[in-house]
Amino acid sequence: MTRPLLSLAALLALAAPALAQDEEEAALSPGEIVAQAPAAEWIGIAPEDLLVMTLAPAPDGSERKVVIQLMPAPFSQGWVENIRTLARAHWYDGITVNRVQDNYVVQWGDPNYDNPEAEGQAKALPEGLKVMSEAGYTAPVTKIRIRERPPEGHVGTRGDAYGDWTDFHAGWPIASNGPRDWPVHCYGMVGVGRNMSPDTGTGAELYTVIGQAPRHLDRNIALAGRIVEGMEYLSSLPRGHGDLGFYTAEEADKRTAIVSVRVASDLPEGERPAFEYLSTDGETFARYADARANRRDPFFITPAGGADICNIPVPVRRVAD
Amino acid sequence: MTRPLLSLAALLALAAPALAQDEEEAALSPGEIVAQAPAAEWIGIAPEDLLVMTLAPAPDGSERKVVIQLMPAPFSQGWVENIRTLARAHWYDGITVNRVQDNYVVQWGDPNYDNPEAEGQAKALPEGLKVMSEAGYTAPVTKIRIRERPPEGHVGTRGDAYGDWTDFHAGWPIASNGPRDWPVHCYGMVGVGRNMSPDTGTGAELYTVIGQAPRHLDRNIALAGRIVEGMEYLSSLPRGHGDLGFYTAEEADKRTAIVSVRVASDLPEGERPAFEYLSTDGETFARYADARANRRDPFFITPAGGADICNIPVPVRRVAD
Repeated sequence: MTRPLLSLAALLALAAPALAQDEEEAALSPGEIVAQAPAAEWIGIAPEDLLVMTLAPAPDGSERKVVIQLMPAPFSQGWVENIRTLARAHWYDGITVNRVQDNYVVQWGDPNYDNPEAEGQAKALPEGLKVMSEAGYTAPVTKIRIRERPPEGHVGTRGDAYGDWTDFHAGWPIASNGPRDWPVHCYGMVGVGRNMSPDTGTGAELYTVIGQAPRHLDRNIALAGRIVEGMEYLSSLPRGHGDLGFYTAEEADKRTAIVSVRVASDLPEGERPAFEYLSTDGETFARYADARANRRDPFFITPAGGADICNIPVPVRRVAD
Repeated sequence: MTRPLLSLAALLALAAPALAQDEEEAALSPGEIVAQAPAAEWIGIAPEDLLVMTLAPAPDGSERKVVIQLMPAPFSQGWVENIRTLARAHWYDGITVNRVQDNYVVQWGDPNYDNPEAEGQAKALPEGLKVMSEAGYTAPVTKIRIRERPPEGHVGTRGDAYGDWTDFHAGWPIASNGPRDWPVHCYGMVGVGRNMSPDTGTGAELYTVIGQAPRHLDRNIALAGRIVEGMEYLSSLPRGHGDLGFYTAEEADKRTAIVSVRVASDLPEGERPAFEYLSTDGETFARYADARANRRDPFFITPAGGADICNIPVPVRRVAD
């Protein structure tokens, strides 16, 4: 095995000149750095890549909408297409959240599919779903990486426990072992539930991460997107007490109903949400990542000197109507 | 900087012979390995090191008790003593959960202390609280580590983004830079809120981690324990919408009341909970850590080849009455 090396280091190196030029920059928090990003560094997300998932209202009657961004090429495109197909067939309408496992995942789907507490017949899937192979869990390398080792003591000389490299590609966290790249299971990422291999899942059963990044799932399950708004409606749901955090039959009333899931581009223009993400190739993101790895804002006394890829969440924001 | 090297590697090396001797072992999940641990590898937790925190009943009337294990020497002992002092003065009784920031922390304390939404006078602290210095965020090294590099391709050759080493000491996850060790902010760890440096916090304001390990807080805040039961009552609380996830004045009714916090050894014998943890120096823990890093149970197709220290939670269990 060659020595672990983060190309994140190369990214962070971009930040150094700006910091040297302006000492005041040293005191900005990561959020303050992002707030100063020029408009040109924000990239609009195509409405075709956004899903609006409406949950049943909260017990107090308030609305609960979750917005999911689907993953871009070259990752998981077969599953992403299936998810659009399922949404357009209104297949997700009326399914439920069936599993909430603390420090792990919230999972939603047909309560009568692959659920130890199934009580009836599984819902028929729409036609036209693709079947993907396990090879699709990874993709060919997305970037040419600088394989030289960063200078001694530089952020990025420290490693990642799961890949030889970590990096960001088109706004997404990825890991790599050289010949192949893969998206990583950070908090809020959305994955595709499956049965035992060689099943790879259709996209009908989805989950999101609600705890420490379960990176052992990387390369074992397809990731298809991430929650960009409304995460709290899923992460704060009551935990299930059956195996793997499924709600038991006695807890069936805790299942949260999913009223509808729509591709944003299919919504009337007035109801279509718009989001943008901070370019992960720009100068602001480099400064932001550096600040996440070395907090210099007033609360902190000892900068960490590094950051886990999942501790550098890519900034995503709603575009005002 | 010398090459990052996990002494976890040495730990994991212990597991290899057992795996080679018994091919069937390869199919056990981490949980199954722990379930087979001999009784001698489970270590009882002193009642003096357990706190029982009773929250107000859930909206459905059900009981909500959280059990916290306090941290052992040489870490954070001044804060741990303060927490016992505060519990014994019944100071925590009647305080509230004031902050729930998604993918970060749940924080409880006096709603009129250090809260942007304070409405009255802060509650007076009991006498006898110690004042600690920032040097207490770390401790002298707890173990002599094997500094040789593990064999090529062996688990543990990959790094940690935050420390030169990660390891377990007396049942707790730690990181190290050589001369100093420190406990790490994994999911469910309990820390001591503080104001701006040089304030180091008393223990009156506490928080627990409910998302991706915020390791940038390591060495910047005292950690004092971890939740060993009832974590879900905190992690599933509604998120706050003020700055830093504090509940706003309009959300004041979401603050969960803390009815009481007691040191387990002060409770009548019949109400005293008993817990034990799996020795992190034993053979079972080595096999468990190896299985967390290389899942071979049937669901998995590609073992990760490594694991983040926070993805190897130390098994803790309640001892039956």
